[in-house]
Amino acid sequence: MGGDAGLPVTVPAALQFARRNPDTKLLLVGDSTAIRAALKDQGGLGRDWYEIIHASEVVAMDDPVEVALRRKKDSSMRVAVQSVKDGRAQAFVSAGNTGALMAISRYVLKTLDGIDRPAIATVIPNQKGGGTTVLDLGANVDCTAEHLLQFAIMGTALVSAVEQRNRPSVGLLNIGEEVIKGNEVVKRAAELLRSSGLNFHGNVEGDDICKGTVDVVVCDGFVGNVVLKSIEGLARMVSSMMREEFQRSALSKLAGLVAMPVLRRFRGRVDNRRYNGAALLGLRGIVIKSHGSADAYAFGCALQRAHEAVQNGLLDDTARTVDSLRQYMQAAKEQQDSPQPAV
Amino acid sequence: MGGDAGLPVTVPAALQFARRNPDTKLLLVGDSTAIRAALKDQGGLGRDWYEIIHASEVVAMDDPVEVALRRKKDSSMRVAVQSVKDGRAQAFVSAGNTGALMAISRYVLKTLDGIDRPAIATVIPNQKGGGTTVLDLGANVDCTAEHLLQFAIMGTALVSAVEQRNRPSVGLLNIGEEVIKGNEVVKRAAELLRSSGLNFHGNVEGDDICKGTVDVVVCDGFVGNVVLKSIEGLARMVSSMMREEFQRSALSKLAGLVAMPVLRRFRGRVDNRRYNGAALLGLRGIVIKSHGSADAYAFGCALQRAHEAVQNGLLDDTARTVDSLRQYMQAAKEQQDSPQPAV
Repeated sequence: MGGDAGLPVTVPAALQFARRNPDTKLLLVGDSTAIRAALKDQGGLGRDWYEIIHASEVVAMDDPVEVALRRKKDSSMRVAVQSVKDGRAQAFVSAGNTGALMAISRYVLKTLDGIDRPAIATVIPNQKGGGTTVLDLGANVDCTAEHLLQFAIMGTALVSAVEQRNRPSVGLLNIGEEVIKGNEVVKRAAELLRSSGLNFHGNVEGDDICKGTVDVVVCDGFVGNVVLKSIEGLARMVSSMMREEFQRSALSKLAGLVAMPVLRRFRGRVDNRRYNGAALLGLRGIVIKSHGSADAYAFGCALQRAHEAVQNGLLDDTARTVDSLRQYMQAAKEQQDSPQPAV
Repeated sequence: MGGDAGLPVTVPAALQFARRNPDTKLLLVGDSTAIRAALKDQGGLGRDWYEIIHASEVVAMDDPVEVALRRKKDSSMRVAVQSVKDGRAQAFVSAGNTGALMAISRYVLKTLDGIDRPAIATVIPNQKGGGTTVLDLGANVDCTAEHLLQFAIMGTALVSAVEQRNRPSVGLLNIGEEVIKGNEVVKRAAELLRSSGLNFHGNVEGDDICKGTVDVVVCDGFVGNVVLKSIEGLARMVSSMMREEFQRSALSKLAGLVAMPVLRRFRGRVDNRRYNGAALLGLRGIVIKSHGSADAYAFGCALQRAHEAVQNGLLDDTARTVDSLRQYMQAAKEQQDSPQPAV
């Protein structure tokens, strides 16, 4: 039910996804009458790729977290998260209200052992042709060094599982040449990361995200959110200015026509719809957040991300990584605490 | 002497600037032999547009602040800042080490009354065809709400003076729809800004920078630095991918040739060299920091910004704005403190 457009986006995306993934069954959670009507529109009725779970309420995009959590107990969002909790679904994808989604997921699913706070991670396209995973993107505004370490663990597990990459490299977002290099939290986080056994590359700067210097970039939720939105803002400006220039005159339009195949390929490379689907990490269940403004193609990419996360065992992977790191650090601590030999 | 290229960039830029601004005299500070040689190369000798001030040392791009400040007392940077202090120059433009420049400027020039810490401000092109002034960009990592208010004052004064805009609007950079809307410092800064008498628009998000929602965006130096570099990183990625696509095949190259005039106009619009020249604000003197990687065109733009700042009385403007705001807030405070009439 969520997102700026709702069913006209989510239902066609689900149908296309089901065609690509005949092994998967989709649970469509929300107003059953409306869902059935949308399915009928798309010619998707009468096959067994889906099941509808009715929910009588909807969390609005501007509902405060408290309203979503306390007063709408039969919202499609709550019912869908519950279906993950109950093991009825292996993952949940939503284009709805991010704050509400995080709060409900955390309340219903709980966090993994060793994780204090869940984080939101997304992928930003980089120059190397792949994507850089960045977290946190707004779930946690004031973070301690330990939280940043936990984000690094979760990001490592995500990239290992979804992109099948062994020991992905982790960078800590910091500032460069300017007067004071990073605040106290970031400095301490760097120390923790260096002794964590993760593949820690060191500090990175803002431009390293698009350079693709590391696989995972870790930062607090305030910084991550502002960076993501700033980048999106620039991308929108660039594409709208380009469109304007190619439509300025008859001659420009003609040039645009000639350059069309090149421009289309270029657009394909910088198209961030491919990377739609931010992961809510650190929970005992897989929850993927689609951009509210996603179209059917983008929402389908978010569904695909959820599918990959399930197939590649993201949950077990994260739990295992957290656990082994805990043991590692415990052992390091005991070694440190044990009486020194009297040399 | 500063910047990645040094004299081969700064001297031609100075010469071109002098041609455009025959009313201005340039003081070229640094190794007099090298400067004279560079001037000779450019055919710039023998006219009275310049004067050379010899300095025997140079602050390297990677010198620690302490070295620059304590051990290189005859660096070109130090001598140039001193020339502003002594009233021999009205402004100083440097492409050198930012940390050193900030520290030396602060030490030699001191801050204006009412300003605790100087800030670095730059302009980022926006969709409206103008630019958004963003500060702080890295001089201050841990900021209080009062510091953010001071940044707003300095940004207001900069835009009023340089862009001749009356009562520019100010936005406070914050995060949006996600779980927790901003940390405590930002929340308190919003309260201060609302009662400041400045033209405070309210909170803005990352994408508002390129949208051009407000004239001035205020944030702490960590966030500002990361945002600026992230945006620069994306811009570089986009332009390099576009170049690659237009050179992929003979046909693409042909298309690029046809589309050249359009692409060139597009590039002109997103060219951030035009906005080169970050202002070190809050000091008792005008200091402009050019990007270290600036070419002669970009360095010339930084010179131009310094020229405008002087001509439009940036210093007096800032001092006046700070002062009137202080009086305003003092009056507001006294009113609040005075006994309430017994209604």
